[in-house]
Amino acid sequence: MTTDTHPKRAAVVNADGWTIGGIAKGAGMIAPDMATMLAFITTDVVADARLLQGILSEVVSHTFNAITIDGDTSTNDTVLAFANGASGVTPDVEQFSSALLAVCRSLAEQIVADGEGATKFVRVRVTGAAYEEDARRAARTVAESLLVKTALYGGDPNWGRIAAALGYSHVEGSLDRMTISIGGYELFSSGEPVASDAHAQARVALKDASQVTILCDLGAGDAFAEVLTTDLSPSYVSLNAKYET
Amino acid sequence: MTTDTHPKRAAVVNADGWTIGGIAKGAGMIAPDMATMLAFITTDVVADARLLQGILSEVVSHTFNAITIDGDTSTNDTVLAFANGASGVTPDVEQFSSALLAVCRSLAEQIVADGEGATKFVRVRVTGAAYEEDARRAARTVAESLLVKTALYGGDPNWGRIAAALGYSHVEGSLDRMTISIGGYELFSSGEPVASDAHAQARVALKDASQVTILCDLGAGDAFAEVLTTDLSPSYVSLNAKYET
Repeated sequence: MTTDTHPKRAAVVNADGWTIGGIAKGAGMIAPDMATMLAFITTDVVADARLLQGILSEVVSHTFNAITIDGDTSTNDTVLAFANGASGVTPDVEQFSSALLAVCRSLAEQIVADGEGATKFVRVRVTGAAYEEDARRAARTVAESLLVKTALYGGDPNWGRIAAALGYSHVEGSLDRMTISIGGYELFSSGEPVASDAHAQARVALKDASQVTILCDLGAGDAFAEVLTTDLSPSYVSLNAKYET
Repeated sequence: MTTDTHPKRAAVVNADGWTIGGIAKGAGMIAPDMATMLAFITTDVVADARLLQGILSEVVSHTFNAITIDGDTSTNDTVLAFANGASGVTPDVEQFSSALLAVCRSLAEQIVADGEGATKFVRVRVTGAAYEEDARRAARTVAESLLVKTALYGGDPNWGRIAAALGYSHVEGSLDRMTISIGGYELFSSGEPVASDAHAQARVALKDASQVTILCDLGAGDAFAEVLTTDLSPSYVSLNAKYET
């Protein structure tokens, strides 16, 4: 990965006359050779610093803090937002929040898409959780499972490894209400593998897919969360084994 | 890995006339193709089931539950101990506990040594922690860091990745009292990289080592813990990517 060849940029222009722009750098969480995540967001709105920080923190929890390449958090991850007021417009808070969310989401997705050694961009979406915290933990556990990530690299729609990761994430839910889909194919439903050719179709679809969505419904409530990640390839290992301090 | 070619056995014969034997199966925590960890321990002591369970639980927390290959917990991990009383001896509890610990430690080490795709057996020892729970969490975080594991595979004595993992494990400790050694070479001491040729020597030693010990002192107390793991090689990825459901 070189940032030169993968610039990460996003912007929203609002009809009221204000703009948000952002740039980011990624995408392994590596210290100290630093493909550290850095993101800088600028806007010309008139905004109180505390209000801006509050909105940014909320947005970050759903974007930059909802991505994982290898589970290794860098000590240097940084997201900064600057508002200079040049537009003279004090924006509608809801419009501004959703514009900031769009910019951060786009940057977070671009960081993941540029993950070290990645061959697939993976969206892990957990629904039906009892609590949002459960949904986030379950999604992150699936996203960081080496067995799930290697199966995705191999193009195997291995719902068993996903179910195992959901299990050891220790969130509320029961197997007999659990549903797992990979790439749009439902492979596990209400505690049973789906008896159809969905599995064979999912394998064909997965083989050449550069983007995959994993949907898991825990059947325990209404909360949901999404974590973005990548598959794990031998070249991730080589890249990070070759580096010398 | 095939268990046929890597039998995992351990036994202790006590002078009072009793014996403990154990066998295990490993070593990726993979469901459902099952390199699942299974261990069975037999003994001919006379023992109350509740006492035996109590001793076993304590021993397991320091042995089988202190190993990690890939962080993926199987739903099927099982350790069972059977006592048939055939020796007629009610053992000294302390002697029995330490014999059981020896058997379980040996089996746990044999499981790690047979880890999928592993080229190095790695002992992560954290000392100077404020609490044992902190020591365990810090050791496990280092042991499960993909960046640490790939550096070990590459033979790079990368204390920076270890320090980063200790940092994001969020245990008590401060950088200016932290010490990190790899393979017996102190590379980081009291918040500073050690200014000597230790780093170059550690690299040479690491290159061909099949066993590595990582020592981390947090400088925050007297508690300690050890977690056993392996490096991460491209062949771990290939092995687990090739498997098809």
